[in-house]
Amino acid sequence: MLTCYACERRFETGQRCDCGEPLWVDTDPAGIAWPDRDGVWAFGDLLPVERPPDGLAAAAGGTPLVRTPALDVDGARVHVKLEGTNPTGSFKDRGSAVGVAAAVAAGTDTVGTVSHGNMAASMAAHAAGADLDCVVLVPADIPEARLGRIATYGPRIVRVDGDYGRLYHDALALAPAAGVEFVVSDSPLRVAGQKTTTLEVLRAFAAGEASGAGDGAAPSPSVPDAVVLPVSSGGHASAAWKAVREASAAGLLDDPPRLYFVQAAACAPVARAFERGDEAVTRLAPEEVGETVAYSIANADPPSGTRALAAARDTGGADLAVDDDAVADPQRDLAGAGLRVEAASATPLAAVGTLRELSAVDRGEHVVCVATGVGYGSGSTAVDAETVARADLGAALGVE
Amino acid sequence: MLTCYACERRFETGQRCDCGEPLWVDTDPAGIAWPDRDGVWAFGDLLPVERPPDGLAAAAGGTPLVRTPALDVDGARVHVKLEGTNPTGSFKDRGSAVGVAAAVAAGTDTVGTVSHGNMAASMAAHAAGADLDCVVLVPADIPEARLGRIATYGPRIVRVDGDYGRLYHDALALAPAAGVEFVVSDSPLRVAGQKTTTLEVLRAFAAGEASGAGDGAAPSPSVPDAVVLPVSSGGHASAAWKAVREASAAGLLDDPPRLYFVQAAACAPVARAFERGDEAVTRLAPEEVGETVAYSIANADPPSGTRALAAARDTGGADLAVDDDAVADPQRDLAGAGLRVEAASATPLAAVGTLRELSAVDRGEHVVCVATGVGYGSGSTAVDAETVARADLGAALGVE
Ligand SMILES: [Zn+2]
Ligand SMILES: [Zn+2]
Repeated sequence: MLTCYACERRFETGQRCDCGEPLWVDTDPAGIAWPDRDGVWAFGDLLPVERPPDGLAAAAGGTPLVRTPALDVDGARVHVKLEGTNPTGSFKDRGSAVGVAAAVAAGTDTVGTVSHGNMAASMAAHAAGADLDCVVLVPADIPEARLGRIATYGPRIVRVDGDYGRLYHDALALAPAAGVEFVVSDSPLRVAGQKTTTLEVLRAFAAGEASGAGDGAAPSPSVPDAVVLPVSSGGHASAAWKAVREASAAGLLDDPPRLYFVQAAACAPVARAFERGDEAVTRLAPEEVGETVAYSIANADPPSGTRALAAARDTGGADLAVDDDAVADPQRDLAGAGLRVEAASATPLAAVGTLRELSAVDRGEHVVCVATGVGYGSGSTAVDAETVARADLGAALGVE
Repeated sequence: MLTCYACERRFETGQRCDCGEPLWVDTDPAGIAWPDRDGVWAFGDLLPVERPPDGLAAAAGGTPLVRTPALDVDGARVHVKLEGTNPTGSFKDRGSAVGVAAAVAAGTDTVGTVSHGNMAASMAAHAAGADLDCVVLVPADIPEARLGRIATYGPRIVRVDGDYGRLYHDALALAPAAGVEFVVSDSPLRVAGQKTTTLEVLRAFAAGEASGAGDGAAPSPSVPDAVVLPVSSGGHASAAWKAVREASAAGLLDDPPRLYFVQAAACAPVARAFERGDEAVTRLAPEEVGETVAYSIANADPPSGTRALAAARDTGGADLAVDDDAVADPQRDLAGAGLRVEAASATPLAAVGTLRELSAVDRGEHVVCVATGVGYGSGSTAVDAETVARADLGAALGVE
């Protein structure tokens, strides 16, 4: 069963309520305990399909949560959830795994998605892993390199000439007649899988695994103070909130974390609505949208934006935006700590800076930044390398 | 303490024995039980450092083991260990994590390695994660893209003009005077970390976690029949053997798996020595070395080659070589199952084909192929995409 959180109507099938809001898969968290390990399927009791089919779906999730004192922001203690270690390099694998598992269980032949980046590659891979056909709708002007990453897994790729922002709605409208299970950014199945990122974070803190080795004097609390993640469609935000609600309903959270959702300032409809105190997120007009390095979260018309608004307000968090200028240093700092992430995944760490300035996050608080994707293939690093003859190697290493 | 397996001499420090063989870190497996989860540090009792420092080192290992019936080879049941989900995209993170943790514990300021690929990126990242200086020796003709991946983490990169094959020895010889802890391909510290790949495989089978969902009729045995991995320097092979020996010594393995090590036919000194029945691996002459798609395992003078020879013989396995032609299909098959791997990581699946033909692996046996690296940034996929106008999307999806 599916439920509309906003108006409480229930549905047998579908993705969105008549009121316009996205649906959630019903769950029964009563009596659920934390599993003793991570991974999407460790939370099978809270998923629409309890076990994965053979193959790739089984490999989703179970990503490291790393305590990184080097990245602490003015006394706020930073932990990084490394979602780029998922099989295709991003958090999207969790939702794809559940979407594909459900499609297999339902006897569906063809799945699909609308994406030009992480979600497209992830969905294509998971469809391949379950031997399902897959159709990926991409914008006509997608860069060739990104197309290559998707093509690795052999899906049908359709470049669509026209307003890319409307393809989400086109896909859902065509799905029944086309016989394609479109698992888009905020599909109930994707959100169900995606909530396991936050469930893993909460489990790790509850199990006392989040303390850093050098933090002996200050062990981590049993719940993080805040979780910060990028928001694009709002699907991930929706999932994080669902995770917190389910853990609370199960009696596993005394003091739920505040949820903060970050957008790039150049395209920040959710942050704008939050700042204005609006009840709902409204679409940005083309002239209100700029370019951003965090292109993977630039969504002018986020279909779960209003959900992200509600989630931030309900948990005492916020929706906020960061400038591209404020993202460069955190991205470099993350790489300087050995953590390669794409620009969009550096926005949470940038946001912690803003939140400390506003005293929305206090010194000593434990903040989890979700690094959603590794960004292999994106950007390039300027190389500063010297060249020496082999005979001169000793001298180059300071040996007399 | 360090031990030479070949001649049983023991050393306080160093990397290689006077007899020429690489050293192993001593361990005491007696009384060790399987941990209840994966990850490098789950096996802390068997490592030279029990706990990681804060940061990236904590994130190494814990990779998925996936049952992939779609990849079964003539009745041999294939499991894939997805090492590409390590933080920098390859198995190298395990050895780098332990090497860096040991360097931190010893108060070392600078670590280094000799590599133009996965190990270089991994070592640079882990050094950054522990705030150590890092020097990476690369060949002068390294492609710019590979250099960029390494440079992400900000190490000192030295392009060395001269015989790249000798740099391994140069680095170890210069290390004490240069004050650099070189964690090269078969350094005792790297091998200690690297053995956790195989320990995780053995743990998963012992815990009954290796059965596929569709394998209800044929649950996996408590030990895999065979583990197959690529061999380059022989360091990983050495580590796999050490894992099997330690698990056996701990009384955790009734019937140890056979270990198979795979090289590219164009550069296969270990396979040649195995086939000839030689006692030791000898260096290939330049005219005996060809080009191969599996460039990351092309090593004409593998410093732990003789160890890989002993490991295969001791466990009833083999060292073998596969042609580039035989690698293309397995690599495509892996991608077709949603598992992106670099060419070198497809050699184990190619080898299973050879081993089935030779009846060295039997129908029904459970074989683990270690996919060592994801290969992001390597190669490109030919793209076959159609373009449609948005108004024609329904027709493109077969909707009337
Ligand atoms: Zn509704
Ligand atoms: Zn010796």
